[in-house]
Amino acid sequence: MKVKVLNKHEVKASLNMISVLEKVEEVYCLKARQKAGLWPLIFHEFQPEIADMDIKSGYINEYDVYGLKVVSWFSENRDKNLPMLFGTTLMFDMKTGAPIGILDAEHVTGMRTGAAGAIGAKFLARARSEDLLIVGTGHQAAFQIAATLIAMQNIKRVRICNPRNAEQGVKFVSTIKDILNLEFLSSFQADDEVYDRIKAKFEVQFIAEPSLEKAVSQSDIIITVTPSRKPLIMKSWLKEGVHISCMGSDLQGKQEIESCILKDAKIFVDDMAQAINVGELEIALKTGTISEDNIMGEIGELILSEKVGRTNDSEITIFDSTGIALQDLIVSKLAIDIAKEKNIGQEVDL
Amino acid sequence: MKVKVLNKHEVKASLNMISVLEKVEEVYCLKARQKAGLWPLIFHEFQPEIADMDIKSGYINEYDVYGLKVVSWFSENRDKNLPMLFGTTLMFDMKTGAPIGILDAEHVTGMRTGAAGAIGAKFLARARSEDLLIVGTGHQAAFQIAATLIAMQNIKRVRICNPRNAEQGVKFVSTIKDILNLEFLSSFQADDEVYDRIKAKFEVQFIAEPSLEKAVSQSDIIITVTPSRKPLIMKSWLKEGVHISCMGSDLQGKQEIESCILKDAKIFVDDMAQAINVGELEIALKTGTISEDNIMGEIGELILSEKVGRTNDSEITIFDSTGIALQDLIVSKLAIDIAKEKNIGQEVDL
Repeated sequence: MKVKVLNKHEVKASLNMISVLEKVEEVYCLKARQKAGLWPLIFHEFQPEIADMDIKSGYINEYDVYGLKVVSWFSENRDKNLPMLFGTTLMFDMKTGAPIGILDAEHVTGMRTGAAGAIGAKFLARARSEDLLIVGTGHQAAFQIAATLIAMQNIKRVRICNPRNAEQGVKFVSTIKDILNLEFLSSFQADDEVYDRIKAKFEVQFIAEPSLEKAVSQSDIIITVTPSRKPLIMKSWLKEGVHISCMGSDLQGKQEIESCILKDAKIFVDDMAQAINVGELEIALKTGTISEDNIMGEIGELILSEKVGRTNDSEITIFDSTGIALQDLIVSKLAIDIAKEKNIGQEVDL
Repeated sequence: MKVKVLNKHEVKASLNMISVLEKVEEVYCLKARQKAGLWPLIFHEFQPEIADMDIKSGYINEYDVYGLKVVSWFSENRDKNLPMLFGTTLMFDMKTGAPIGILDAEHVTGMRTGAAGAIGAKFLARARSEDLLIVGTGHQAAFQIAATLIAMQNIKRVRICNPRNAEQGVKFVSTIKDILNLEFLSSFQADDEVYDRIKAKFEVQFIAEPSLEKAVSQSDIIITVTPSRKPLIMKSWLKEGVHISCMGSDLQGKQEIESCILKDAKIFVDDMAQAINVGELEIALKTGTISEDNIMGEIGELILSEKVGRTNDSEITIFDSTGIALQDLIVSKLAIDIAKEKNIGQEVDL
């Protein structure tokens, strides 16, 4: 049985953000239509706050695939000259059970998470939103920017704030244009029209903002990508009608925004059970600040217009994205298909 | 990151039943000493009794490995000229989180399940047991025979019974000597002393017995390896002091022996939670024929003498083996280590 294997570089060569946005949007809808499903999340801490791993798994009927992603985080790898994060995705054919692909999961995770934050903004933010704020300057930040600039039509300014280290924001802004060109724009080189359109979208102003309060108060769309365990964003700082995509909270105990923000906001999630257990909502639910009734529904239901999202320009909207296996599976399937087409990647005999 | 990949043939070339018996015994003990653990079993039926899959996962501290095995069963593959069962194991280094191996799981599953049945007999059957019965003539039967002949000292006769199709028993007996030589004995060719010792152990009488009742009534050790969903073996047929290793029941609804046998037997399991949920015990527990108090403990506790097993020659003993990820992980780790040593197998850049 020949099985395709794609390492990080081979995955990169097979994906671009436009198609990833399409696929992630599609799989949210498939989930809402019960054409795809998740299996229970497995999470294990080898050493609390030092090393852990999780296994996310599920299936997509319409694509005839099922599979899983193992993500391991070993913070002490820093001292070993190794990456702190390892991710591996394993995919199977739902018609036969045969393995069809083994992929390094890092780039898919980056792309599908970027797409998720942007889809939250696309379907919940005010369409005329001009000011985007990214909170956090880690690996995810550039993916969020690329995806949101592509998904939205009127962004003029992107603020960056690292609430723990303002210098990181300055550093990030000094390199972001090169990163967008090298890592995201370059994947459209084959098509001049698309290339020029995305290039124009990437030509916005980037601002390193040391004060999180000031940055928040100026922003129409906020995307949080931090590992925070206490609220960073306060309700009193928010601009009227803001949208927040909360991406950082994907484990118990994580929290990025003040719980009371959730109380009066229109909240959508990627997966109900997972958001309740490990999402931004977790702590607000546990402390009773909100109840499950405060959750409007899953993002797929919103995209399909089965649920109503924003109805005016003054309400606050939230997308609580915990990251689901279906995003990984649909994007990995795309990467495998493209890699086969372009003859990229390795093959093993399993 | 270079990752070892072993297909079925490469796994075969890396393992022999003596070392697999040692490793499975060791990992049962590590589990009992809390040096290894299991994560929740994921099971999904795509179509009831037609196609399903499960993910078994866990970790072994002392070997610094964690990982998972995905086993998929698609019965309609029969008509597609494809195997009905696909298994893939994915292993990681517990010091860094890096992937270390991707293996076809079929041969490891066969070997570790054979070892499990034999270990049940080794620690629970009467040491002087001469008559072994294998119920079922499928893929597992030869593994059980090879392992039990190696693990026990006095077996003289091996009866085979396929309770649904007597002819299969005859066919099986006509080929078993060749299979034992080709698939199991050949792996000891490098060491004359071991080779001769195992060859002698394999020189027993093989008997195809069409009547299950007659076969059961003559046997000291019974190993069941069928997919049965109703009891095949009745209490009234049993010889005094018999040991039964129940290997077939690993999913809800499966059952191979009459529930009342369990009532008066000394029962050990491989994993308490899994045996209660999906093992031979499941139905007897649900119908109230036995309670959890009837379970003496886990096989690792017995091997470590933390629990008492057989105390006389007349009691009935049972090992309910559902198959745990730790068996797969320890044997897969062995296969990877040997493969590296012998320069067997493939390598991918992940």
